[in-house]
Amino acid sequence: MSMTNASPADAARDAKAASHVLSTLPASARNEALTAIYAGLEGARDEILAANARDLEAARRQAADGAPLSQSLVSRLDLGRKGKFEDMLRGILDVRDLEDPGASEVIANIASLAVKSGNSAILKGGKESTESFKAISKVISEALAKTQVPNGAIQLVTTRDVIPQLLDLDQYIDLVIPRGGNELVRYIKSSTKIPVLGHANGLCSIRPTPKMAADVIVDSKTNYPAACNSLETLLVQESALDTLFPAAAEALLAKGVLLRCDPKSKAALAKASFASQHGDKIVDAKDADFETEFLALELAVKTVVGLEEAVAHINTHGSKHTDAILTSSPELAERFMNSVDAAGTYWNASTRMADGMRYGFGTEVGISTNKIHSRGPVGLEGLMIYKYKIRGRGQVAGAYGEGDGKKHFLHERLPL
Amino acid sequence: MSMTNASPADAARDAKAASHVLSTLPASARNEALTAIYAGLEGARDEILAANARDLEAARRQAADGAPLSQSLVSRLDLGRKGKFEDMLRGILDVRDLEDPGASEVIANIASLAVKSGNSAILKGGKESTESFKAISKVISEALAKTQVPNGAIQLVTTRDVIPQLLDLDQYIDLVIPRGGNELVRYIKSSTKIPVLGHANGLCSIRPTPKMAADVIVDSKTNYPAACNSLETLLVQESALDTLFPAAAEALLAKGVLLRCDPKSKAALAKASFASQHGDKIVDAKDADFETEFLALELAVKTVVGLEEAVAHINTHGSKHTDAILTSSPELAERFMNSVDAAGTYWNASTRMADGMRYGFGTEVGISTNKIHSRGPVGLEGLMIYKYKIRGRGQVAGAYGEGDGKKHFLHERLPL
Repeated sequence: MSMTNASPADAARDAKAASHVLSTLPASARNEALTAIYAGLEGARDEILAANARDLEAARRQAADGAPLSQSLVSRLDLGRKGKFEDMLRGILDVRDLEDPGASEVIANIASLAVKSGNSAILKGGKESTESFKAISKVISEALAKTQVPNGAIQLVTTRDVIPQLLDLDQYIDLVIPRGGNELVRYIKSSTKIPVLGHANGLCSIRPTPKMAADVIVDSKTNYPAACNSLETLLVQESALDTLFPAAAEALLAKGVLLRCDPKSKAALAKASFASQHGDKIVDAKDADFETEFLALELAVKTVVGLEEAVAHINTHGSKHTDAILTSSPELAERFMNSVDAAGTYWNASTRMADGMRYGFGTEVGISTNKIHSRGPVGLEGLMIYKYKIRGRGQVAGAYGEGDGKKHFLHERLPL
Repeated sequence: MSMTNASPADAARDAKAASHVLSTLPASARNEALTAIYAGLEGARDEILAANARDLEAARRQAADGAPLSQSLVSRLDLGRKGKFEDMLRGILDVRDLEDPGASEVIANIASLAVKSGNSAILKGGKESTESFKAISKVISEALAKTQVPNGAIQLVTTRDVIPQLLDLDQYIDLVIPRGGNELVRYIKSSTKIPVLGHANGLCSIRPTPKMAADVIVDSKTNYPAACNSLETLLVQESALDTLFPAAAEALLAKGVLLRCDPKSKAALAKASFASQHGDKIVDAKDADFETEFLALELAVKTVVGLEEAVAHINTHGSKHTDAILTSSPELAERFMNSVDAAGTYWNASTRMADGMRYGFGTEVGISTNKIHSRGPVGLEGLMIYKYKIRGRGQVAGAYGEGDGKKHFLHERLPL
């Protein structure tokens, strides 16, 4: 691992060369490297939390100066939040052992997954986390230096100006993983020939019917609104407007959620007894709301006639991330799950389940809304590719075919 | 299937919408469509071969007028070549049944794989195959019209000017598969934000040692020189220059192969008795020869000290397609197969084995030299992606965690 001052081309070439070494290291050597990272981070907890506190302080200072500072940004940034540092540490061991769950902080995530999967990685932190990033990377760098992992395998860049140059190096770089909002992902996609693992915004939608509706909807929206797997659009079947919807809306309002309603859903709420207390929290939806990733306690609500309209809306306006249906009908649920073109399609479960830790991957590099290579939460397997090896005894293609004395290919399905 | 006159944006939007229908059709409906294509093509054999003959005639006429016409192009174009039409037909049934091997002609390949995998496809034929393309597509179009496959699922474009517009439609198109030489692949990659399945040139290299060397090398080079899995660079270990190399070279020369030799390998041949008969077929290699896809009876020959130099050469100059080692040492072979960064790494077998039919995939859309999504021969599985479905009973993320009364995620490895 190196905090690189090399030119982007040199950095990328070194990373490529390092990956050729890394991929030939035995699993034990890669696991040792992960143990070293874990021990390093654990030993440097105070130093890292102090750096992180400086980042948070800088972010709050900018907010005081009028810069937009979302609660979402602070939630993501704060390593001191209860359990977050422990989750980060556990994520590294989980990747090493590939058994138990664990979440973790981005830089440690990616470095672990890269080492374990035999890929090199060049990391660029967000400017708001500069101090935390430097502190963590110093520890990881020192830890890896004691192992067989080549120095070029994990590299860090700290200035934004090298990004366009890196995006040009498709001869060395196999995949770009932007982590951030829609705007970043769009910028990256339009600036490179390298495949981009689109960690785009999550426009998760739920179509409710049964009585657990309120619980699942509230969890999907409010469990961690800053996350990309939070609910952003609620599609309400017309027949449920006066039956199931009011209870769900009341529960959302009680949690402080702003409801951006289409005319029919707004009219349905106007009849409810609780509406008058929450007048400022029930507003008219604009068209753009149905394509917006709020990442905050805001929810777009749209009325649909039935399943077909819901699916058409999701396939047109959705982000291909995760979409859920709440219904007691298995037939409707299966049709929904097959027809919606998204990485995850759920029946009667919270969209917040879309997560590498919850899926049992240990940790994730992001959630892919592409259909290329990896889809949904991307963990170790999502970063791997296969290679065809043939061990022969001099077999030649010319010996096979239809003519006299030719051999035939036997293709058998073998037991796994 | 439609020979489209629609704007590229309309064509792509229709294809996307059709894919949503196609992916929900039961396997039986998709298989019926493949049966219909098969029957249609079989019934129109004479008409298609006549159209193909017109393409070949036009190609030969252009060659007579001085246009470059490679033997490689004619080989690929000629549907009348013994067994080729039958292979095309069998490929369709193989995709349908996914059991037995079969090769096939591109348009039928891609249409079958698209229908079977539930993807839509927009196809553009090469200008040299215009007549064949129209004849085959007419048959496929009529066949599919009788099935449940939506009309937009397979579309054909015949003019080159729509390509840049299609490459701009990343909102509808998930993957571009250029089939052609290096120049086409480079143009496509530099012109689109859509991921490109790089079917780049095959720079297959072999490093010989044991006695089957001559057979495997000759097969790799001469079995079908127009194919991307043909041998283009031979790396000779220095210690084999006077032992194994001369016999292999003699066999290659007897097949009419031009050897582009580095100084050491040329000097080794100069000592051989057969050299004087083949003086015009043993020439000096230029640097560019080691990065050239000849697709003809030409081979670059380079001397290397040992395994490390061979691997470094391949990882620097190779195309990540298929590379083989000929050796009696299992240790050297395993090191080679792990260290070479390519879709296929072989020990003691011909590079010509790199083929979807030979791998048992039925047919292929191409050979991927990317490490993203699919690698090596790409058949049905290589065109698929997974989707995460959750069937719940109202599970919410907030119920899981570390606190009092919280549930834990259980991740168990289930038997397959």
